[in-house]
Amino acid sequence: MKLSVGLIGYGYWGPNLARNIQQNSDLALVAICDQNMKRLADATTAYPQVKAIAEPEVLLADPTIQAVVIAVPLRWHYSLAMRAIAAGKHVLIEKPMAETSTQAQELVAAARSTGVVLMVDHTFVLSGAVQRIRQLIDSNELGKPTYYDATRINLGRFQPDTNVVWDLGPHDLSILDYLFDHHDPIHVVATGHCHLNQGIADMAFVTLHYPDNRIAHLRLSWMSPVKIRQTLIAGDRKMAVWNDLEADEKLKIYDTGIHVNSDNAENWQLVLPEYRVGDVWSPRVDRTEPLALLMQHFAKTCRERIPSPLTGEAGVRNIRLLESISAVLQANLNAVQVREQPWVAS
Amino acid sequence: MKLSVGLIGYGYWGPNLARNIQQNSDLALVAICDQNMKRLADATTAYPQVKAIAEPEVLLADPTIQAVVIAVPLRWHYSLAMRAIAAGKHVLIEKPMAETSTQAQELVAAARSTGVVLMVDHTFVLSGAVQRIRQLIDSNELGKPTYYDATRINLGRFQPDTNVVWDLGPHDLSILDYLFDHHDPIHVVATGHCHLNQGIADMAFVTLHYPDNRIAHLRLSWMSPVKIRQTLIAGDRKMAVWNDLEADEKLKIYDTGIHVNSDNAENWQLVLPEYRVGDVWSPRVDRTEPLALLMQHFAKTCRERIPSPLTGEAGVRNIRLLESISAVLQANLNAVQVREQPWVAS
Amino acid sequence: MKLSVGLIGYGYWGPNLARNIQQNSDLALVAICDQNMKRLADATTAYPQVKAIAEPEVLLADPTIQAVVIAVPLRWHYSLAMRAIAAGKHVLIEKPMAETSTQAQELVAAARSTGVVLMVDHTFVLSGAVQRIRQLIDSNELGKPTYYDATRINLGRFQPDTNVVWDLGPHDLSILDYLFDHHDPIHVVATGHCHLNQGIADMAFVTLHYPDNRIAHLRLSWMSPVKIRQTLIAGDRKMAVWNDLEADEKLKIYDTGIHVNSDNAENWQLVLPEYRVGDVWSPRVDRTEPLALLMQHFAKTCRERIPSPLTGEAGVRNIRLLESISAVLQANLNAVQVREQPWVAS
Amino acid sequence: MKLSVGLIGYGYWGPNLARNIQQNSDLALVAICDQNMKRLADATTAYPQVKAIAEPEVLLADPTIQAVVIAVPLRWHYSLAMRAIAAGKHVLIEKPMAETSTQAQELVAAARSTGVVLMVDHTFVLSGAVQRIRQLIDSNELGKPTYYDATRINLGRFQPDTNVVWDLGPHDLSILDYLFDHHDPIHVVATGHCHLNQGIADMAFVTLHYPDNRIAHLRLSWMSPVKIRQTLIAGDRKMAVWNDLEADEKLKIYDTGIHVNSDNAENWQLVLPEYRVGDVWSPRVDRTEPLALLMQHFAKTCRERIPSPLTGEAGVRNIRLLESISAVLQANLNAVQVREQPWVAS
Repeated sequence: MKLSVGLIGYGYWGPNLARNIQQNSDLALVAICDQNMKRLADATTAYPQVKAIAEPEVLLADPTIQAVVIAVPLRWHYSLAMRAIAAGKHVLIEKPMAETSTQAQELVAAARSTGVVLMVDHTFVLSGAVQRIRQLIDSNELGKPTYYDATRINLGRFQPDTNVVWDLGPHDLSILDYLFDHHDPIHVVATGHCHLNQGIADMAFVTLHYPDNRIAHLRLSWMSPVKIRQTLIAGDRKMAVWNDLEADEKLKIYDTGIHVNSDNAENWQLVLPEYRVGDVWSPRVDRTEPLALLMQHFAKTCRERIPSPLTGEAGVRNIRLLESISAVLQANLNAVQVREQPWVAS
Repeated sequence: MKLSVGLIGYGYWGPNLARNIQQNSDLALVAICDQNMKRLADATTAYPQVKAIAEPEVLLADPTIQAVVIAVPLRWHYSLAMRAIAAGKHVLIEKPMAETSTQAQELVAAARSTGVVLMVDHTFVLSGAVQRIRQLIDSNELGKPTYYDATRINLGRFQPDTNVVWDLGPHDLSILDYLFDHHDPIHVVATGHCHLNQGIADMAFVTLHYPDNRIAHLRLSWMSPVKIRQTLIAGDRKMAVWNDLEADEKLKIYDTGIHVNSDNAENWQLVLPEYRVGDVWSPRVDRTEPLALLMQHFAKTCRERIPSPLTGEAGVRNIRLLESISAVLQANLNAVQVREQPWVAS
Repeated sequence: MKLSVGLIGYGYWGPNLARNIQQNSDLALVAICDQNMKRLADATTAYPQVKAIAEPEVLLADPTIQAVVIAVPLRWHYSLAMRAIAAGKHVLIEKPMAETSTQAQELVAAARSTGVVLMVDHTFVLSGAVQRIRQLIDSNELGKPTYYDATRINLGRFQPDTNVVWDLGPHDLSILDYLFDHHDPIHVVATGHCHLNQGIADMAFVTLHYPDNRIAHLRLSWMSPVKIRQTLIAGDRKMAVWNDLEADEKLKIYDTGIHVNSDNAENWQLVLPEYRVGDVWSPRVDRTEPLALLMQHFAKTCRERIPSPLTGEAGVRNIRLLESISAVLQANLNAVQVREQPWVAS
Repeated sequence: MKLSVGLIGYGYWGPNLARNIQQNSDLALVAICDQNMKRLADATTAYPQVKAIAEPEVLLADPTIQAVVIAVPLRWHYSLAMRAIAAGKHVLIEKPMAETSTQAQELVAAARSTGVVLMVDHTFVLSGAVQRIRQLIDSNELGKPTYYDATRINLGRFQPDTNVVWDLGPHDLSILDYLFDHHDPIHVVATGHCHLNQGIADMAFVTLHYPDNRIAHLRLSWMSPVKIRQTLIAGDRKMAVWNDLEADEKLKIYDTGIHVNSDNAENWQLVLPEYRVGDVWSPRVDRTEPLALLMQHFAKTCRERIPSPLTGEAGVRNIRLLESISAVLQANLNAVQVREQPWVAS
């Protein structure tokens, strides 16, 4: 028996969700909702057999719908998810989960008391590459993780109600949450720049210091002429480079290490580390579209209540970090403004 | 008539300097000095006709030597350069110029009063790629510069008397000084990590906020399994990507722009910018080895006293920035340490 | 009024055709036919509103269907296309059009006498890259074409009823037909190898000599561990490299030329050409999926009878060349066999 | 005691040879000969301590010189090498060894009777990459070799006394000789084109059929806007791609295989092979400059008479193949000319 699913939001991301719901053998796409009539017509063309609904209320009131997938602008997340939970439906919601961590916690509490599944679309966590990296950590092939250094830059898509940290950051923060065992950073350094609109950072540089000598750096931008999705993940035994735009060799493991040898002192130089540069190995990575894996995971979680790395709680941690980073970033933007316009300070 | 040159230091970088001095038709390599006998023997094998000298004093006392090139560890820079200037010799010194900006200023003052040329080896400033970028700015092809975002990472070479900012940073800071018209940043954000040695940062993330809405970001590391030398340089008309490790297409210019169009509002979305994605153009870049260009520039500056972007003054600005960045970075490292070891703070 | 289309064959390529028919606003996908029940069920899942038909006869007998798209194994092409034409339907057929040029000519004659459109899916001809190259030739930017050198290799898909020349060759031969103004080669050199099955070449190297000093080379393989789609196309003014697997810079134009300068003779060397190595330019290429462009072109051709580079006549020329190449290739395979087994010859 | 070496020819390649002789601790560069005074002056500038000699006779008459390295245009190879052998000197000669296989055999016979070493500079055979591939064959990691498919193309350097097959072909033919155990091909297919000069092919496509089901293809060109050095080498267990222009991952091993499974027959399709696509592995390759390895090998061979893959006999086999290929290529060029100018045939 398939789980019947209603999709709310058929804008930029909605069509991808619709296609992956449709193609999943455990899910039945029964309704699509969008208040924009053009988009609703597009949905009907692509899925003639699916109910097209203009008002979310109508979809949420349909007792045959067991689960809803929410893909609307951020400011609508909380109220729609809350009403879906109240209507007893499982909820899969786009990242970031809500506008504030308080809202996110309320959603988690509501889902818990109602007994429905609340899942956040932190898609990359389920991707073949991240799952492979997690295995390489668990098998001690990489060794103890030491750093995560991500470049996630491209041109646009500028969004009016969220900055680049809230747009691109959730991907890396959810991966970090998964790879660094849900630890929180102990110190946040972040700054950025608003090229287009004074209120909205479109370029951000974020460093997260974690306990146990771990560090993460995120380079996020909507202002790059080239699209880059490259992440360096080092362990103390080997190092990995994940290039998500590569078709064939997304993941490369470098048999590279550094150790200190105290015997090679000499005239003008002191004790220096030795570098081991060895083979490079590109393990086969599951190429299934992450959104397909997500839909399978959502269906299974709704039916079997399996443990999931994409819980509402992970969504809350994600938003708490977004809030911390935004606060530090804003403080630096303020400092720059003060120094750029000295008369403001006088 | 060739300028007779003595090279002090035949370690990691010295052989490259020697080769480029030797190959320059305006310079004569007459002496090489190194206190390490193995290295001195190597120098003699490679240049049998050149005087091999163990003591810098001896080289500096040689009245036939008109210029010295100094390529020794940082802590020897100041005293050697000061004695060379005192001996009336032109000086070309490796970056960074000195251990402190005070020392650097003293060197500038001494050179000025003695009337000799004092030049710092900020090699990349003269490279074909940077010269081409400067032209693209001057001709307004790129438009007004808005950001400089450099990744300069590799494995090692860990150095015992300097951190990664002092080792790799001078390259980008000198290029920024040249491209951003010698402006100083108004706000510095920097942090990093010490993987190998608690005292010495081997990974650093530096953001420099400049007046007039410019920003620069440097990602510097000795801990990367892959070598990357990639810099994004955006103007408000076009954007450039400089990949220094590419043999054939080091520089790419993207006919990419963003502008705000106020007519495309709709239901759930507000005013959004429009993206122009056009052709990509890779201008031919002079592939002459930058060190060869440097030697030519040094020879010409000594003879004709032409204006140079590699003056001692540029070296002073470089070190002032290194000092500012180091201070901010150290403050963040301290903050991390306090939070990682909460008992220290109690 | 949409053109109603029936698709025959829902195997490897059929789903892509179905999707592009469905998404085209001038075409209506009304029926899908496949004798394999598993595939037919897949088609129904994906397109619940479309008639699922097991027997081609039934589809061809449906008077409401105006056009058929044929995507079945090669040996069925002729008979199915012939019956579709007889039924008065427009036909879009996968490449290669038929098993022999005689069959192909009969199809052309039949379509002409019936007055229906007969089009062959030489998809790449309509692709953004090939259209751009054609423009660069027409505008004399590349100059007079001199060579076309294509590498089209990957792992598999081994097919039991056709060799690698008939599988991959039609792409390049149709592009050549389009770029070299429908000229036929005057001399064919071809050889290859059968790694898996003695009867079926899975690797082929084909050189076509054209009049007017043009040459083409095709390197075709099902046995490569890496997928490569790289074509060099030179004119006597500039040269182009088309890498179809690149997402962003599919086409690069090199401002590279060679001319003979008779003034640089010297001791041991004679007159040598001079090489001009200049800028590289990557023009923006239309990224629309070629199959979408094909469907649009098919719809327009059926309605307006516009001139097309994908006519049945182009299909005939394509197959004539496949036959010539196969004959030469087989002669070389025979020669190898004779020499490898000398007792055969005795 | 170092072997004293005289270098004859200081043109395009000579400076590289000089540098590597100079840097080798078992060789002493004592004399450089070139009839071009400009070049001889360059040699003196670079190596002030080395005798500069205008006439080869003078160098060959110097009894202190034990070995000569010959790097002059092809038409001078035979006579110079013959005189050097007659003078009792070991000879290292640039490829191709001589203008004809008869000349090459005479050189081998002369060296054998005189008892001196005659070595041909088939540099790539000693390169880290080729040595690693040979090991992968010997250890059965790749399995039985099945094909070698090389692309060796670039812009120029057009040479007046040799075509592109004689210029670039010796590299691949010597590697093939080494990897395919000195077997000769049993069938040669070759054609090409003369873009610049009717007598001299500047683009060639060569296929060599070997016994035991092996095949090799060489794509050679002086007319490519891009430089490519990419070779696919397949065994029946794994496949390798060697990209010589890659700095870090020159060699990649694909755990890719194909086997026929007779159980997967179905409706329209017959028995098909199954493809295994697995990990990719890039073994560490010795990055020593091949010319440095050559000089070491030459020194060792002269002193210890170790077995060598670069013997004069290998040079003879190389030239025999060049002759066979040239004959087939010329036959095809003639065929093209006849068909392009039909009046010639009438």
